[in-house]
Amino acid sequence: MARIAIVGAGMMGSALALPLLDRGHEVRLVGTELDDALISALKSGADHPTLRYPLPATITPFFRTELEQALHGVEALALGVSSAGVRWAARALSAHLKPGVPLLMVSKGLLWDGSELAILPDVLRRELPPELAVDPVAVAGPCIAGELARRVDTCVVLTSRSAASCLAWADLARGSYYHVFTSADVVGTEVCAALKNAYAMGIGFAAGIHEKNGGSAGSIAMHNGEAALYAQAIREAEVLVATLGGDPHTVSGLAFAGDLNVTCNGGRTGRFGRFLGQGLGRAGAIERMNGATLECLEILDTLRSGLSAHGGAGRFTRRDFPLLDHMIEVALEDKPVAIPYQRFFRAPLRP
Amino acid sequence: MARIAIVGAGMMGSALALPLLDRGHEVRLVGTELDDALISALKSGADHPTLRYPLPATITPFFRTELEQALHGVEALALGVSSAGVRWAARALSAHLKPGVPLLMVSKGLLWDGSELAILPDVLRRELPPELAVDPVAVAGPCIAGELARRVDTCVVLTSRSAASCLAWADLARGSYYHVFTSADVVGTEVCAALKNAYAMGIGFAAGIHEKNGGSAGSIAMHNGEAALYAQAIREAEVLVATLGGDPHTVSGLAFAGDLNVTCNGGRTGRFGRFLGQGLGRAGAIERMNGATLECLEILDTLRSGLSAHGGAGRFTRRDFPLLDHMIEVALEDKPVAIPYQRFFRAPLRP
Repeated sequence: MARIAIVGAGMMGSALALPLLDRGHEVRLVGTELDDALISALKSGADHPTLRYPLPATITPFFRTELEQALHGVEALALGVSSAGVRWAARALSAHLKPGVPLLMVSKGLLWDGSELAILPDVLRRELPPELAVDPVAVAGPCIAGELARRVDTCVVLTSRSAASCLAWADLARGSYYHVFTSADVVGTEVCAALKNAYAMGIGFAAGIHEKNGGSAGSIAMHNGEAALYAQAIREAEVLVATLGGDPHTVSGLAFAGDLNVTCNGGRTGRFGRFLGQGLGRAGAIERMNGATLECLEILDTLRSGLSAHGGAGRFTRRDFPLLDHMIEVALEDKPVAIPYQRFFRAPLRP
Repeated sequence: MARIAIVGAGMMGSALALPLLDRGHEVRLVGTELDDALISALKSGADHPTLRYPLPATITPFFRTELEQALHGVEALALGVSSAGVRWAARALSAHLKPGVPLLMVSKGLLWDGSELAILPDVLRRELPPELAVDPVAVAGPCIAGELARRVDTCVVLTSRSAASCLAWADLARGSYYHVFTSADVVGTEVCAALKNAYAMGIGFAAGIHEKNGGSAGSIAMHNGEAALYAQAIREAEVLVATLGGDPHTVSGLAFAGDLNVTCNGGRTGRFGRFLGQGLGRAGAIERMNGATLECLEILDTLRSGLSAHGGAGRFTRRDFPLLDHMIEVALEDKPVAIPYQRFFRAPLRP
């Protein structure tokens, strides 16, 4: 069994500690500079403040200031920081890592650097010193942190540029309720993980429109529209993934269709889409989210820039993706919600 | 505008009357011999008894005994009978139809005749006199009847062996909230429509297991498993569709991924799966359904026979579809629910 550090003590990083602990690993949970209150709570034996659930006392919490001690002798590392924290993490960690250490990223996102859309594992790899020879492994699939912390059956997919790194982490993490599969399609899997956050917002429009029309949440008269949005999201993601160099077949698996299903059943992105569907407008909906991080806005902005600059690798523009186009209009350009169903399911949308 | 008869006054047949009426057609709603109570209620001006919603008075109801009068001068026909009623309908209707009349089937299912798995449009075409030259059109996609009756946005896909018939019905039915798309993949679309009823049962297992473990419906700790089952259902359906001669890409569209999404958000098949997941056993779960028709049992039985006889066209057996295999074990062979997550997402499951 291995000595494993998880850096980033948010909900997903902390929940990942459970299957690792249950596999018999020694697990150290290290806060970032944003996590001091979380780590204080855990050190005092309180429930995890955002998971609102107790973590086993055998998981050792460390403050950011104790990073060197926490990483001493570590044989594998998991990174549970936000996509914005990936560059910080690369700088903070590089002095303490052994070359070739298996590194798992929980973060999801797409970055646009002005000339290309990059997946986070590639961004991290470029930020780390080459002599460390680290090929980051990424995780995708339907996994609500609060459920994983309760040790329920969860299926995820790991992917990496390095098959050896991917298999190493799969072997470390796989357990009786944490079912780990692997994919060689790192671009497709990571694009899926990023896109599903954006599309979860668009699917939320249906519930909001329904409520605006006087319906109560979950009652009859919203599921037909919601399911159509869901199917259109899959169709658009297939083409986006193929355009960015991934395998479109990845879209109908755990990383997009599966994860989008779970994201629609709750979660802040869907709630934000619901507020937009209710007609609150961009500013009103953001205000109702009380400062919650909205990854969907970052991803939509990234896609707008990328598709605009690239013309979608010469093949597509945002107008070829009617749901994405409308999500950008509503969330970034403050247009009212009016779902363009007539533009859905067109022939060009086949990868 | 056209004179259209809908034969079968159940929920879906009756709901279909709304978009047709709103397109300006004359709509006649004809009961089968099972629908006398429904037609009596409609003739008296009461709400539709199973939709529990009023139909516009401009939709004219007819008893089964008034079939000849109802079909007089009809320019298009929709068939809203159960899959078991398709052969009856062919006999009852053939004397009254004009050759080449566009005929839409709402029924979904797969039939096993001892040597092959047949889709319903082909079954109906074989039962009709050849001189009628009718190429049935079928409809699939996420459409809850009660929502369509309330005129909410709904996306469906029409398909037929005859492109002309398909386009004729699409032109008749398409309207401001009934968004009609077409597919040339009649086998894939119809296999999807049948399979999603079976898989909706399996996805219901997750909610039942959660409740058996003390969770309340919809609370945290069931969505990870539910979403994994959903993704696995898509993977298995892709291979089943390809094996039966359809296009596997149809699976990630409206007819399966979309419709399965809506079926999971309520509906009797999912409820039946929930009872099985709770551990009630086959007999106990059937009893709790109070005599409701369970198409999933028919389809599972059909698939068991078909895969057993064919060896899946020489390529697959039921063991290659771990979720389907387990659904057959539980629903037909009375085994307890124990979801084989470890067997999911295997390499052979790529069409």
